Amino acid sequence: MNISILGSTGSIGRQALEVVENLGLNVVALTGFSNVALLKEQAARFKPDLVMDSSHGMAGLEAAASHPKADVVVNALVGNVGFLPTVAAISAGKTVALANKEVLVCGGEVIMSLARNKGVDIVPVDSEHSAVFQCLNAKTPHQVRGDKGCAWGDRGQLWGDAKVYLTASGGPFRGWKREDMADISPAQALKHPNWSMGAKISIDSATMMNKGLEVIEAYWLFDISAKQIEVLVHPQSIIHSMVEFADGQILAQLGAPDMRHAIQYALTHPKRLANNFDRLDFAKHNSLTFEKPDTEAFPCLRLAYEALERGGLYPTVLNAANEAAVAQFLNGQIGFLGIPAIIENTLSAYTGKNKQVSIESILSTEQWAKSFAEKR
Amino acid sequence: MNISILGSTGSIGRQALEVVENLGLNVVALTGFSNVALLKEQAARFKPDLVMDSSHGMAGLEAAASHPKADVVVNALVGNVGFLPTVAAISAGKTVALANKEVLVCGGEVIMSLARNKGVDIVPVDSEHSAVFQCLNAKTPHQVRGDKGCAWGDRGQLWGDAKVYLTASGGPFRGWKREDMADISPAQALKHPNWSMGAKISIDSATMMNKGLEVIEAYWLFDISAKQIEVLVHPQSIIHSMVEFADGQILAQLGAPDMRHAIQYALTHPKRLANNFDRLDFAKHNSLTFEKPDTEAFPCLRLAYEALERGGLYPTVLNAANEAAVAQFLNGQIGFLGIPAIIENTLSAYTGKNKQVSIESILSTEQWAKSFAEKR
Repeated sequence: MNISILGSTGSIGRQALEVVENLGLNVVALTGFSNVALLKEQAARFKPDLVMDSSHGMAGLEAAASHPKADVVVNALVGNVGFLPTVAAISAGKTVALANKEVLVCGGEVIMSLARNKGVDIVPVDSEHSAVFQCLNAKTPHQVRGDKGCAWGDRGQLWGDAKVYLTASGGPFRGWKREDMADISPAQALKHPNWSMGAKISIDSATMMNKGLEVIEAYWLFDISAKQIEVLVHPQSIIHSMVEFADGQILAQLGAPDMRHAIQYALTHPKRLANNFDRLDFAKHNSLTFEKPDTEAFPCLRLAYEALERGGLYPTVLNAANEAAVAQFLNGQIGFLGIPAIIENTLSAYTGKNKQVSIESILSTEQWAKSFAEKR
Repeated sequence: MNISILGSTGSIGRQALEVVENLGLNVVALTGFSNVALLKEQAARFKPDLVMDSSHGMAGLEAAASHPKADVVVNALVGNVGFLPTVAAISAGKTVALANKEVLVCGGEVIMSLARNKGVDIVPVDSEHSAVFQCLNAKTPHQVRGDKGCAWGDRGQLWGDAKVYLTASGGPFRGWKREDMADISPAQALKHPNWSMGAKISIDSATMMNKGLEVIEAYWLFDISAKQIEVLVHPQSIIHSMVEFADGQILAQLGAPDMRHAIQYALTHPKRLANNFDRLDFAKHNSLTFEKPDTEAFPCLRLAYEALERGGLYPTVLNAANEAAVAQFLNGQIGFLGIPAIIENTLSAYTGKNKQVSIESILSTEQWAKSFAEKR
């Protein structure tokens, strides 16, 4: 199997290379951004046909995403920069192993409809969505839909009484009140209790926007309605997510918080191959707890549900405004509470309720939302 | 689908009738034991072709188990009395939905080999084994084996690095020390913290022999080795059991402690149909904990593993001695600590290490073990 990895120098990208090496797969393309030294090292070790750094821009990402020899494209990019490369990968008929959740948040309708037309699978890498995928026995939305004999987008018929529980660690500020959050520094927000991750996703976890983005990701990946996706705070991050089936029984996927598991499963499913990754030890992880999310303290989660409910390009606006706000927070331009404020204002200012969703309208809406959010 | 229910007046039998009624299935045979009034009521309601009470003895059970119209036989009997009826059901080519775990403890080798030869499925009803079955996506041992291309009994090749976690509530005396157990009364032992069950299984839960029997049941049902079955005390009984796959990822089945779920799944698998049974509420069940079982306080669990390790007819001896000891405890003839003592003595006294396992040797060994245990 030939693999192309977009974002190979990031946290997920590096772990994807470990998995690929363990599995003895072949790397045909790599792309990196700022860490040029590591990208060179990776290129020397894996000898891909194509290596693209940031100097190649979007064209470089698209070339790696549609590399003729690639069977699977691992999209380990961060943010909406991954949208066009994903379009390129699907258009070229590649299976996409997707860690880059923002792609489905900013353009789920376009991505899924393109994947459907091309007969391409979008396989989740996010641990929560991998968990759901595993609970569904590695069935892709195509297959589940086929079993049920129902049409695309008919989420009610597809899921019936079933639902998804997306678990959330709650991030470093779980249990905090809104009024105590004003002075949170980037350094505090970057410290995730359970997972070691990149900066953008760490801040998203701290605001719980990460879970909001995952709700929208699940909506598209699993063709499920928003009200059938329930977020459950589970501080230990051991249960990665769950599916409650139509008969009321629940399957959950559990494991050590080691992303290599989900990456490997994306590449080997429905097979499960031996590895030496961390395993769960119930003597150590002997208590699993659950709480309702506090959407008053963490308005980003509410905003994500609202954007999904409004539909159209609202999730695109949400995502772009969030990216701009997170960047401003990391740069010290705004405080922690400024993040949801900017997103809410940008969503309120958006006037394209009835705009047709297309690649072009997604890109122009993103541009608008980013500028609006930055001008604040 | 036509159903025959053995033991329809017991706890599982009554719930099986509820499920059958919900699903609109047809009841062709019922058997009861001491509760003749309820059996009559059930007969009037479900109008089966055949109704057998205790006056018909083993022949009555066998007739119901092999009823020509039955597609599925629900074995909801308690104890080794269910062994010969299960043989009769399999011989007649019926799918067996098995709640009667003692059948596999006393005669697993004969039962599974007969089922294999007849191409008959033994579908678990026990909540733990149903959980494992669900985690395996309703694959029977036949199918899993087929996928792996390995032979019957080749447990190592079939399971590889994978394992089963059988969860245990720990029963009403979880956390107790052995020296405090001498004066436990039958009334105390009959009070299970989570499940409402019959007397025999409640006492087995109190001694943790129930989990020992389930280890042996899992050994036969899933063709797994004893060392790949780990018992995990989980006092809340919400996770019904788990499978850790070869890649180190775990699937768990969770649900409200309502046996109708497992019974329904045994009848509808791999489909899941809507019902109005209890559903899990994570707001109520917001903490799941795990402990190692205390085999010093609960020697029955150790005895079961030992009997399985010794193989041959040792599990048959274990099971018969346990049944005799539980009866003596319920009658007030022995104390709570007498149960493991009798079982251990009976196992020590058994001399048929190399005896061939057959229906005849199972029956004669049971008879011997029962007499030995009763003479104490």
